[in-house]
Amino acid sequence: MNTVIVPSRPIAALRDAWRHCVGTGEFVLGLRRDYLESLALVQSQIGFRHIRGHGIFHDWMGILRQYDAAGHVGTRYSWTYLDQIVDAYLEVGIKPFLELGFMPQALASGDQTVFWWQGNVTPPREYAQWNALVAATLRHLIDRYGRAEVLTWPVEVWNEPSLKEFWQDASQEEYFRLYDETSRTVKDVDADLQVGGPATSPEADDWYVPFAEHVAASGAPVDFFSFHAYTTGPAQHVPFGVYQTLRHPSTLLEQFARPRRLLAGTALEHLPMHVTEFNTSYRPDNPVHDTAYNAAYLAPTLVGGGDLVDSFSYWTFSDMFEEQGVPVSIFHGGFGLLTHRQIKKPTFHLYAFAARLGSDVLARGEDHLVTRDDTGRVSVLAWQPVGGTDDPAEPDRHHLRLSVPVRTADGGTPVTAYAHRSRVNDDDGNAFTAWQQMGRPASPTSRQLDMLYEAAEPAVTHRALEVDPATGRADLDLHLARHEVTLVEIDPVSDETPAWLDDLRILGRP
Amino acid sequence: MNTVIVPSRPIAALRDAWRHCVGTGEFVLGLRRDYLESLALVQSQIGFRHIRGHGIFHDWMGILRQYDAAGHVGTRYSWTYLDQIVDAYLEVGIKPFLELGFMPQALASGDQTVFWWQGNVTPPREYAQWNALVAATLRHLIDRYGRAEVLTWPVEVWNEPSLKEFWQDASQEEYFRLYDETSRTVKDVDADLQVGGPATSPEADDWYVPFAEHVAASGAPVDFFSFHAYTTGPAQHVPFGVYQTLRHPSTLLEQFARPRRLLAGTALEHLPMHVTEFNTSYRPDNPVHDTAYNAAYLAPTLVGGGDLVDSFSYWTFSDMFEEQGVPVSIFHGGFGLLTHRQIKKPTFHLYAFAARLGSDVLARGEDHLVTRDDTGRVSVLAWQPVGGTDDPAEPDRHHLRLSVPVRTADGGTPVTAYAHRSRVNDDDGNAFTAWQQMGRPASPTSRQLDMLYEAAEPAVTHRALEVDPATGRADLDLHLARHEVTLVEIDPVSDETPAWLDDLRILGRP
Amino acid sequence: MNTVIVPSRPIAALRDAWRHCVGTGEFVLGLRRDYLESLALVQSQIGFRHIRGHGIFHDWMGILRQYDAAGHVGTRYSWTYLDQIVDAYLEVGIKPFLELGFMPQALASGDQTVFWWQGNVTPPREYAQWNALVAATLRHLIDRYGRAEVLTWPVEVWNEPSLKEFWQDASQEEYFRLYDETSRTVKDVDADLQVGGPATSPEADDWYVPFAEHVAASGAPVDFFSFHAYTTGPAQHVPFGVYQTLRHPSTLLEQFARPRRLLAGTALEHLPMHVTEFNTSYRPDNPVHDTAYNAAYLAPTLVGGGDLVDSFSYWTFSDMFEEQGVPVSIFHGGFGLLTHRQIKKPTFHLYAFAARLGSDVLARGEDHLVTRDDTGRVSVLAWQPVGGTDDPAEPDRHHLRLSVPVRTADGGTPVTAYAHRSRVNDDDGNAFTAWQQMGRPASPTSRQLDMLYEAAEPAVTHRALEVDPATGRADLDLHLARHEVTLVEIDPVSDETPAWLDDLRILGRP
Amino acid sequence: MNTVIVPSRPIAALRDAWRHCVGTGEFVLGLRRDYLESLALVQSQIGFRHIRGHGIFHDWMGILRQYDAAGHVGTRYSWTYLDQIVDAYLEVGIKPFLELGFMPQALASGDQTVFWWQGNVTPPREYAQWNALVAATLRHLIDRYGRAEVLTWPVEVWNEPSLKEFWQDASQEEYFRLYDETSRTVKDVDADLQVGGPATSPEADDWYVPFAEHVAASGAPVDFFSFHAYTTGPAQHVPFGVYQTLRHPSTLLEQFARPRRLLAGTALEHLPMHVTEFNTSYRPDNPVHDTAYNAAYLAPTLVGGGDLVDSFSYWTFSDMFEEQGVPVSIFHGGFGLLTHRQIKKPTFHLYAFAARLGSDVLARGEDHLVTRDDTGRVSVLAWQPVGGTDDPAEPDRHHLRLSVPVRTADGGTPVTAYAHRSRVNDDDGNAFTAWQQMGRPASPTSRQLDMLYEAAEPAVTHRALEVDPATGRADLDLHLARHEVTLVEIDPVSDETPAWLDDLRILGRP
Repeated sequence: MNTVIVPSRPIAALRDAWRHCVGTGEFVLGLRRDYLESLALVQSQIGFRHIRGHGIFHDWMGILRQYDAAGHVGTRYSWTYLDQIVDAYLEVGIKPFLELGFMPQALASGDQTVFWWQGNVTPPREYAQWNALVAATLRHLIDRYGRAEVLTWPVEVWNEPSLKEFWQDASQEEYFRLYDETSRTVKDVDADLQVGGPATSPEADDWYVPFAEHVAASGAPVDFFSFHAYTTGPAQHVPFGVYQTLRHPSTLLEQFARPRRLLAGTALEHLPMHVTEFNTSYRPDNPVHDTAYNAAYLAPTLVGGGDLVDSFSYWTFSDMFEEQGVPVSIFHGGFGLLTHRQIKKPTFHLYAFAARLGSDVLARGEDHLVTRDDTGRVSVLAWQPVGGTDDPAEPDRHHLRLSVPVRTADGGTPVTAYAHRSRVNDDDGNAFTAWQQMGRPASPTSRQLDMLYEAAEPAVTHRALEVDPATGRADLDLHLARHEVTLVEIDPVSDETPAWLDDLRILGRP
Repeated sequence: MNTVIVPSRPIAALRDAWRHCVGTGEFVLGLRRDYLESLALVQSQIGFRHIRGHGIFHDWMGILRQYDAAGHVGTRYSWTYLDQIVDAYLEVGIKPFLELGFMPQALASGDQTVFWWQGNVTPPREYAQWNALVAATLRHLIDRYGRAEVLTWPVEVWNEPSLKEFWQDASQEEYFRLYDETSRTVKDVDADLQVGGPATSPEADDWYVPFAEHVAASGAPVDFFSFHAYTTGPAQHVPFGVYQTLRHPSTLLEQFARPRRLLAGTALEHLPMHVTEFNTSYRPDNPVHDTAYNAAYLAPTLVGGGDLVDSFSYWTFSDMFEEQGVPVSIFHGGFGLLTHRQIKKPTFHLYAFAARLGSDVLARGEDHLVTRDDTGRVSVLAWQPVGGTDDPAEPDRHHLRLSVPVRTADGGTPVTAYAHRSRVNDDDGNAFTAWQQMGRPASPTSRQLDMLYEAAEPAVTHRALEVDPATGRADLDLHLARHEVTLVEIDPVSDETPAWLDDLRILGRP
Repeated sequence: MNTVIVPSRPIAALRDAWRHCVGTGEFVLGLRRDYLESLALVQSQIGFRHIRGHGIFHDWMGILRQYDAAGHVGTRYSWTYLDQIVDAYLEVGIKPFLELGFMPQALASGDQTVFWWQGNVTPPREYAQWNALVAATLRHLIDRYGRAEVLTWPVEVWNEPSLKEFWQDASQEEYFRLYDETSRTVKDVDADLQVGGPATSPEADDWYVPFAEHVAASGAPVDFFSFHAYTTGPAQHVPFGVYQTLRHPSTLLEQFARPRRLLAGTALEHLPMHVTEFNTSYRPDNPVHDTAYNAAYLAPTLVGGGDLVDSFSYWTFSDMFEEQGVPVSIFHGGFGLLTHRQIKKPTFHLYAFAARLGSDVLARGEDHLVTRDDTGRVSVLAWQPVGGTDDPAEPDRHHLRLSVPVRTADGGTPVTAYAHRSRVNDDDGNAFTAWQQMGRPASPTSRQLDMLYEAAEPAVTHRALEVDPATGRADLDLHLARHEVTLVEIDPVSDETPAWLDDLRILGRP
Repeated sequence: MNTVIVPSRPIAALRDAWRHCVGTGEFVLGLRRDYLESLALVQSQIGFRHIRGHGIFHDWMGILRQYDAAGHVGTRYSWTYLDQIVDAYLEVGIKPFLELGFMPQALASGDQTVFWWQGNVTPPREYAQWNALVAATLRHLIDRYGRAEVLTWPVEVWNEPSLKEFWQDASQEEYFRLYDETSRTVKDVDADLQVGGPATSPEADDWYVPFAEHVAASGAPVDFFSFHAYTTGPAQHVPFGVYQTLRHPSTLLEQFARPRRLLAGTALEHLPMHVTEFNTSYRPDNPVHDTAYNAAYLAPTLVGGGDLVDSFSYWTFSDMFEEQGVPVSIFHGGFGLLTHRQIKKPTFHLYAFAARLGSDVLARGEDHLVTRDDTGRVSVLAWQPVGGTDDPAEPDRHHLRLSVPVRTADGGTPVTAYAHRSRVNDDDGNAFTAWQQMGRPASPTSRQLDMLYEAAEPAVTHRALEVDPATGRADLDLHLARHEVTLVEIDPVSDETPAWLDDLRILGRP
């Protein structure tokens, strides 16, 4: 094995497209305490900028209300829950990435619904009513939160119209109409609002150019292009769960890159590209989401995705999610970075590790990313490369050797560095494994939860690293366990030890 | 006007049947932050013992789940949300008063539902399945929370079967079957669990004796008798609201008393009687709930209800309640002691005042209750009597004069007492009035909320009361404003003023 | 009485010199929970920018430590407590206004101390050691908190050298040496640090020009000029307290203005002027600080002080203060805006009211200040003028009538405005009065504290104010009680009342 | 190595004498936030019953205040700080173990003081004044906290009168007078208060019998006997620290046992025995306190001390302690279970592990204690035996093998158990080591603190343990690192895994 010689000068600035947005279950879940405690935890240790979920116009939100006043049928827009939720978002420092949908029953042209919570996926009976709803909502948000604030919230039109589950007949023609009507309504409210679409499902190649051509023709405004990426195969169902095959992780990055490539030559080619959903599996009941494998699988995406798109939004931050009904067990293959009751999954730690990286990239490889910040701290994110279903099982160990330049903020060479390592793998930082060992208690007791919280924390080790005074470098030999994602933080040491201390004397032995 | 001479010896011990239980919106709302913050506030300032609401078996709770495993259809009971909610109850020191209902879709014999949230109100297709659900739920609760704890949670069978909205056809025969099956199932789980019914709607006179006769015949166990009480007339609808007439407040106490009277001579006569719901109006959209009038109206019930029944449960602690859909405005006539976002209504203060009373009753009248605690504090709860729709409007003022015995914990007579008064009326402690003056903002801004919180606090005044050294008494002259409920707390003063102090010198004037 | 016609256009921008700084007891008190809870409360409702107190170098802070290592006597600077305290300041959003003093015992040339906590007030034995201490401290602060942050912290040299209690012999010559040495040391650490003095006691006229002349001659750097202001006469002692006469409140503003006037023509004339301490009485045991009178007395200073100086720092935010020893009673005449355990005094509310004012001044008079903010809210701060010892006692009432322009944010005229009034006077918002009525419990029980917290909140009233559609004005008739300070917030109403509501129907009466 | 066969029936009930009391720095520190946050943390994870420290009557507490009122010199007792501190204790569920001392300056007969904070250690000038102070204090505590509560607070007379540093001349005769006067005063306040002494320093053999003989003769009341235990040799000073030799840990238990043995035959023989202070070193600046060695050293004492005495109080819970001045560095050899800012030391974990043990002892040996609770959880506390200065250095590893009976709450044999292990040793759960590697930052930055908090948590591992269906036993093979203390919690598993799950399918590989 060769040693990676980490350059001492930055090769790039770290892109944080990974942090731009995160997914959530349906909007109305934002009223729940578990959801909000999870979001607060995510924000304190990761810090996403935006949050995107379905169902802002679902009837459970109570926004559109019709009434009969002495024979006159009127419409009242009501913000009771929308305001509670958006207030709560802003409290923890996250902004909405607005997805407009699905259809309120009262405006719907049909009965087709999606999900346990029955989002209506049919076009509006009358576009005027839909447009009025969109306009009223945006105007209200601007009134309440201020124009400057709301202008930073992207507005996306619908979700995955390319699938007939999400848009009646997956009708492209009807979606284009919806897009035109909606995007113009948005701009009528404020021409500086950012609107986009088409929020397509993975690999909807037959939508990209037609969408570009349509808006070129219709003149509908488009400020960004959005789409989704997932890499699992078809669902093999068991009760309350599925198993699926997984393609190679590089497929994810290919999915990220594809739309811009296909749009080459169109007016949309240079727009911001937002992957408004991605994950391994698109199912909220696939146990792969709970594993260290999921974290190791996504590490290259986190590191490389920013080269290809402006954001990619992990679907979702919490298992508080009800598309397939109420989860029957604390671990159930949910999308969440956190389970109900805030047990951290390995992928949570992948993100939390990323949030601790420095702003300058020193090195990047297939199993590592090395950064430095302005205090001199060097951070090494390393992982065992994993390959998807078609690859053989990963070996028990992965070994990595780095020569790391260590210098103080003012450029000097310290005698030693403090190396602080956090490990997540099939055993460490892995409450899913602990929960399996506990016999998979569906609804753990308070005592079991305490043990799961402990098991969910990364294993931490630390040591003093000698810095070669000649080269200003330290050797870092990293042994990773199966499916491990590791963060090593290396701080140059400023030694304050007084001359008179002698640790050999602490225990009083001669 | 005569002076009420308050006796110096207790005439009774204060009953706290008013505090035994409080109502809540549907069970699943217990996942919400607003709900839980409201409950925590209610518990810290009032402190109810039990909480009762509908819908423990509603599909949104996700308890009963059917699945198909390779052709075998199985049932799985899942406690994900039930546990989160009951954990949260116990955290703030409140216990469930379990109401078993409504019917999970999968077990229902018909399609009839009640409320916006569609509780199914039909009998089970097969009682065995229903019984299995009941038994599994109770066994799980005992496993998780311990037998000793769960034995203190009453179990009530269904809600208002006497109304066809809540029980298909209001069929007495079918309810009696449900009762028999369910109560026996409960006792099969643990013979010491307390089970009861029939949870009838107000003045369901034709149910009391038949129920008694039925269980006498069937041998079904009954540990308590439960029913409801409301005093409003028919609803006059306007959009998102109703107006109703109100009968005289004494009607409430008559409703409390009636079942036991009618049951005289039956085996149920001496059972504990629980009014598992009461309020002025039975509608969650009648603005009377938001008024000081509501508090003044209910004061005699709080004071006198404990003479007649073992508990009477205010319906409900919070406006987080969705029977008629999502409320469209912060004040909307909801049942709550608190609005969304925890604005205190006048009736909240009536309860909070009651929670500050002493344990010994010294006097009780049509407009007052006087208590004392073991430190010597005398508390006077006073109110303007109000009379319901058929009475003339109340005068602007109500006047009350009391001669109050004041003594220290060890029986001495202090020179003075400290009198601390808290007032709630049409202006003071009345955020509803402030909100009307603000133009009724449906979803108030943070700044408006701050003003509403301030306006919602009782007006506080205080003064030194001279105690007549000869009689050990102080005169208390109370002027109440319209619809006022007042609490006066009178503490004997132990004067620590040093001899050298002279307040005339503070401002340095000769 | 004439009506004050409030102009509809701003006459000035509101200066917030009153908020620039607040005083504190000795530095080491910043380790205490009561202190930090008080500071957090003050910051949440007032929000000062800086905090200044004595004793950063007092031995209790443990900064300068001498040791003997095998015969060699060394000095170690230790930041254990300094860091805890400054960390805690920054946590609640307040920055130090550094006052360098008093003298560590180990560096002192004499034994003279001041206060119960024995601050040594003698010059350093060797200036080199003092300079080293100053430099080490500033360098450490820059290391820990960053240069950009620390450059916003003014550095003041010593405290009240003009009094022999605070500086041995009140020696001007020695102070000038201290100033020269210290200010140069400060600039040696970083030339952009802001240094100043001479922090003189009130009306030290014989120090201003000599200081200006001295620094002109010595070339010592001076970035700001600082001094103190108090208006009481000599202390008339009783045990654990004093009474004092009070000069007219205008005297305070005269004290603010005087140094700049006397410095006219010197190089210091145009420097920032900081009143680094002011209050009515300079004694921490004068009960005037606990009264509404104190608030009314200081109202004109808050309103007008910013015309004269760049900051004036209320001495002090909390009664957690030990210059005369540990206070023996919860109210004891301490300087604090808050007592121990966070009971708000009337002067707290004067500041909290000021913090709610708008940024544009519409009118200003001897008993009022009217402001408006960008939402259209008009705020009226009004008070009963008080006159000091030599004036007759104030009348029981004060009356004020204003014609207030009311308009919406976009310049329209609303039909009504919501007027929200907060009142503090001899009875309302006055826990001191309640405490007197309680018999002055020196260390109140938890129950007494609860009543005191309630009594300490301003009385709140609210009403709808009609706006004349012709003039866009509303009449405000304000009756103030004795020593009252009142805030009226007037918000233009945007009426959302639906057409179908009729409040006459709420109680169901015909 | 033999396998320890852990019996399946309890051999004893677990004594919690180790939890009865904990030591603290001087009383007045109880006002500090760091102190109270540390105490809250200690209470939440350990839960001591009592807290004992010096200096309740130190002048910094401000209890005894003399004044001159017009020529009359009076005494005022003031409870400002005492109440704040005791309120704070009770808030976190800990009660005072009152130690009466040292002497207020105003009552002292001499100038001799002890510690940086100058506790006066001379007898009272007049015993009447001392007795009045004691009586007033106890009466006040009973008034404020209730008689029933205060009767549970032991009252100890003075501290270590057997050393001349703590009691002038270490005069036995004078102490006996102090004891007689004080104990009688205590009983005069309430005959049911528990009073005791003589709080002697370690191995003060010449005090035990004389004290017994004295009180037999004088008739002074004695409800318990108290003394101290430490096992270090003389201090070898370096600046801000000491090194010391350590005797064998068994010496501690011998010290615990000795007084009762020597008192055999006296009236005191069967009194409760309280070790009101113990630790390895009696110095607050010996780094041994910061090590894993300290935890391993004390493990046998925790386990066995309860056989010998009724309580033994670890000196102290926090490094917030000032006997030798303000600590100059975050780790400085302080007594604390926690450093300033709440970094957990290894000995904290020893106590936290003990707090997680069950109530039944199954086995006990030189390197282990095995307990079981009523849910069936078996807890194994294991440690590497260490031997003090005169023993050779401990090996790198310690190995332990146990055969553990595993059964469910109802006595069944589970198929597997969940084993959850927490490890503290020279590397794991050891922030001191991390801090050394960081270069011993005296006042760590917020970022360094974050890493130290992480390093301070025990390493957690977990696995499924097979239970032999024939024997109902599982084998536990424990490898301990140097100076390790380990807790293994073994919970019988109730397997809820549904039949249809197959973890081999999660990654989709054939």
